[in-house]
Amino acid sequence: MAMEFWFEFASTYSYPAALRIEALARSQGVPIVWKPFLLGPIFRTLGWSDSPFNLQPVKGRYMWRDLERICAELAIPFRRPSQFPRNGLLAARIACWFEGKPWVPEFVRSVYRANFAEDLDISNAPLLESYLDSLGQPGAALIQQAQSPESKEKLRAQTERAVALGIFGAPMFVVGPELFWGNDRLEAALAWYKSHPQAEH
Amino acid sequence: MAMEFWFEFASTYSYPAALRIEALARSQGVPIVWKPFLLGPIFRTLGWSDSPFNLQPVKGRYMWRDLERICAELAIPFRRPSQFPRNGLLAARIACWFEGKPWVPEFVRSVYRANFAEDLDISNAPLLESYLDSLGQPGAALIQQAQSPESKEKLRAQTERAVALGIFGAPMFVVGPELFWGNDRLEAALAWYKSHPQAEH
Repeated sequence: MAMEFWFEFASTYSYPAALRIEALARSQGVPIVWKPFLLGPIFRTLGWSDSPFNLQPVKGRYMWRDLERICAELAIPFRRPSQFPRNGLLAARIACWFEGKPWVPEFVRSVYRANFAEDLDISNAPLLESYLDSLGQPGAALIQQAQSPESKEKLRAQTERAVALGIFGAPMFVVGPELFWGNDRLEAALAWYKSHPQAEH
Repeated sequence: MAMEFWFEFASTYSYPAALRIEALARSQGVPIVWKPFLLGPIFRTLGWSDSPFNLQPVKGRYMWRDLERICAELAIPFRRPSQFPRNGLLAARIACWFEGKPWVPEFVRSVYRANFAEDLDISNAPLLESYLDSLGQPGAALIQQAQSPESKEKLRAQTERAVALGIFGAPMFVVGPELFWGNDRLEAALAWYKSHPQAEH
């Protein structure tokens, strides 16, 4: 089985993870499945009406500076979004409905760059359509399909599966029963995958 | 200036950090100042009456498994404490009042091992006295001094300084104006210290 990469488009630490996971995992021979989900419903079950980085400003200040340092270290462009968190619902539906399509990882990276490097509104359908088009896909048609009742239900079910797996934040790397939380645990997750027999995954 | 290591005796991720920081920092030529403080008063200002790992059981489950994996990887003994969080007030007063004494780091490690490897009650004064005695110190006398009004005030002021620095969790590594949060950021903090001129610290 593959290692699962669970991400939420509004999640700050998912940004560097999304940008670096594919090349890093490929170099180590670890297959990845991209699993978009929504943190909003999970946060609401914890009693939070907003990102904890907004609810706890002292933690938010730390996170923004920390993310800035991490991106500088990785040579990833970063601009603090003027709106946080941004609404990644449509982008998540697209990435979820078309799971496994070869263009999904690059689409996901485009959306993350829009949010955290270009300060663009990722809920904007024409923007997402332009990303799909630039990947050689029929953007308008794909967006229509991603807004079907079946697609909406698929993302809902995926978020429910996240809860069932014990996922409470993003990014989360899942290797069999093991969870690894945070961009800075990507290496540990890959190492775990490689050091444990496939049958256990 | 030295890099500051801010820790709380009840903090789970402070345990591996406390056990490995001295050797790692010394091997890199980075001076460390040990700064005990209390998270309880800080959590209360965030509206929490308990550890977030107890208030959010799904996050707590993750943390205990994660800590187990980290300790196994570092070959550090670990036994999940039967009581969490434990009361580290007296131990913190001792480590704070005697800051800079050469026996403090080993005393701190003894207390962390008691809490997270031996499942012992670290609020127990005779236990702490035995650790001090075994380090060649007059345990009973030191504990008496650590319970003086001046000592209590010193730890209170130190916790207030933590708040002023923007510290909201432990362990926290402080290099000049930069905060690095978590055992897994120790390497990044040391690298930052070495790559930035001393004058900036």
